[in-house]
Amino acid sequence: MSSTDLLLTFNAGSSTVKIGIFTMEGDAARRIGKGVIDFRAEPLSLGLTRGSQTFEMPLKAEMTEDLHGVIDETLAHLADHFDTTATRAAGHRVVHGGDRFTKVIALDDAAIDAIDALTPLAPLHQPQALRFIRALRHLKPHLTQTASFDTAFHATQDDLVRRFAIPRALHDEGVKRYGFHGLSYKFIAGELARKAPRAAKTVVAHLGSGASLCALAGGVSRDCSMGFSTLDGIPMATRPGPLDPGVILHLAGERKQSFEAIEDLLYHRSGLLGVSGISADTRDLLKDGRPEARQAIDLFTLRIAGEIGRMAATLGGLDAIVFTAGIGEHQPAIRAGVAKRLSWLGLAIDEKANAANDFTISTGESRIAAHVIATDEEQVIADEAMTLLRGG
Amino acid sequence: MSSTDLLLTFNAGSSTVKIGIFTMEGDAARRIGKGVIDFRAEPLSLGLTRGSQTFEMPLKAEMTEDLHGVIDETLAHLADHFDTTATRAAGHRVVHGGDRFTKVIALDDAAIDAIDALTPLAPLHQPQALRFIRALRHLKPHLTQTASFDTAFHATQDDLVRRFAIPRALHDEGVKRYGFHGLSYKFIAGELARKAPRAAKTVVAHLGSGASLCALAGGVSRDCSMGFSTLDGIPMATRPGPLDPGVILHLAGERKQSFEAIEDLLYHRSGLLGVSGISADTRDLLKDGRPEARQAIDLFTLRIAGEIGRMAATLGGLDAIVFTAGIGEHQPAIRAGVAKRLSWLGLAIDEKANAANDFTISTGESRIAAHVIATDEEQVIADEAMTLLRGG
Repeated sequence: MSSTDLLLTFNAGSSTVKIGIFTMEGDAARRIGKGVIDFRAEPLSLGLTRGSQTFEMPLKAEMTEDLHGVIDETLAHLADHFDTTATRAAGHRVVHGGDRFTKVIALDDAAIDAIDALTPLAPLHQPQALRFIRALRHLKPHLTQTASFDTAFHATQDDLVRRFAIPRALHDEGVKRYGFHGLSYKFIAGELARKAPRAAKTVVAHLGSGASLCALAGGVSRDCSMGFSTLDGIPMATRPGPLDPGVILHLAGERKQSFEAIEDLLYHRSGLLGVSGISADTRDLLKDGRPEARQAIDLFTLRIAGEIGRMAATLGGLDAIVFTAGIGEHQPAIRAGVAKRLSWLGLAIDEKANAANDFTISTGESRIAAHVIATDEEQVIADEAMTLLRGG
Repeated sequence: MSSTDLLLTFNAGSSTVKIGIFTMEGDAARRIGKGVIDFRAEPLSLGLTRGSQTFEMPLKAEMTEDLHGVIDETLAHLADHFDTTATRAAGHRVVHGGDRFTKVIALDDAAIDAIDALTPLAPLHQPQALRFIRALRHLKPHLTQTASFDTAFHATQDDLVRRFAIPRALHDEGVKRYGFHGLSYKFIAGELARKAPRAAKTVVAHLGSGASLCALAGGVSRDCSMGFSTLDGIPMATRPGPLDPGVILHLAGERKQSFEAIEDLLYHRSGLLGVSGISADTRDLLKDGRPEARQAIDLFTLRIAGEIGRMAATLGGLDAIVFTAGIGEHQPAIRAGVAKRLSWLGLAIDEKANAANDFTISTGESRIAAHVIATDEEQVIADEAMTLLRGG
């Protein structure tokens, strides 16, 4: 019996990698398993899921910068649990595609170099996927690898929307709003087209430890709260969202803080953690009785609602909002907090549907629909890899 | 015959000072003349207006940092044109009052020191008024001087609205949104109370070479687009408005730009000038046929409309918008551009009324009212000084 063609996906974040195992069935990639490695854990282990079974396997390989040992061992574990003999490709999520990469690409040395050349635009994020791409290229030189870009979905935005009011030369050199979380938004746009095809003007709130909003018109990206970097838009677990540029001048000028101290402040000590002084996790904050916790949650929902108001101006109206990602999918209190601040637009939430994380959480009378949709970035990576493999 | 009591006001900007000459009549300060010195001009001169007469007087004094000579000569010219023997007070516009000064104060040495202590919060703006205050204190030690603060009108804002999502310690140390242009907004709130008392939720667009928006609920400030510094909010003549903090990290980190270069970029080379590469003046840009000029105008109106959308979320609705200051009062094309982007909220502009700079420029059917009101910061400085002098 011949083996089924397989696709692997790698979604490398700042501290974890999520691995997807997909079968290639006709034109469709169907997920049959998943794995995760948390690089903050010691000792390292690989968590694997196959159907309803989960396995936790210690990784014995030494953790090196090039990841060769860890990935080699991970592939061996995958081969123990899945028939990986007919693995056709590995698809990767890459944060930044710049202006050059506006759709999925097959990775050769030149493409990898071109992705690396974009590192100055995302110095903390771009290297993560590159490590996995290079390690796999070393270990499996003949395996087809593809890259799906978080920025690509936003290539449809108007040039005007992407501009900061800075000298045009800087804009031309790439200092502009690219937008991120594009794989998530692409998945949501697909789901919306099937499940709520009449919602023309939609704002999608991707609320995870990284968080952004995307304005969709007819399923196409028209605006994103993020940004040139992953700092802008709305407050996140440890990142600030909107910040007066004068604050950074003040920290550097009046307070003589170093570049490194400011970078650490903005990436790791701001956001919900900074405001609350308690936790970066909305679940902790919602349970905590202290006013600082309440304040962090309130600032989070205030800024999300404000950004939705701003995006409604970009779209010229608003038909629906969608909540997705960890917080968006599972935390009714956050959704209710945002929705309450948008009641002036005619948004009304059905408390019971919201508590149940239903697909539609707005009431029948609500002028604006509100939905909850589970996102799946790995599915988009796999679908895009399929498109390339099938010569699409 | 006894002389009429007189009040002088000083509104010191980055390159000019505007002087107001007011009589004190009962409880009211009535303007009888004005003066202006443009410090960019060579040779220096004082432009004076009295009734319908205007005078341009060369200033012979040497321009020194302490301004003693220039102000002494200016006061002599004022005495030639007005009966200044009964000058009771000089009122100043001071940009930053911090958390301490939330209403007009009489200036003594301690108060002047306290204002100076706020200079780190507004290093480019705070010293301007201080120069005039100290020069007058030197030249006229017995003259009562008062300070009216641009931040004071915004003291009514919720603590939450003023927060950035940064560590609470920084907020407690003063890194927060203060809001500026408060004297202008106070004047507009007074005019609105008289002329459009039913507009409960209003966004005022103060559009000059510096520009900001203020959200008023019942005449009280609830939000302001500016900010900790005068850089944030909406694009201005040469300042950027909203900017991803990652852009500054990129300029400092990847591009190794100095603090001074970044400060110069953000204060003097961004905004309409940066985007167009042509001019910082909307009048030039509106006349210019090049696409870069059009783009700068479009970005200006896009960001204003977006910020109004954000502020509607703060207010929980929107009844009216008001345009004021140089651009807001005199440029129908800018107002029309903003209004068009807000038609989804039910805002409709009467073209003829708009072209005539009428008080009401929205149509009778418009769900949101739109007004044009000429602002008068000097009147507020004079009124506040009167309040103090009359023991109010």
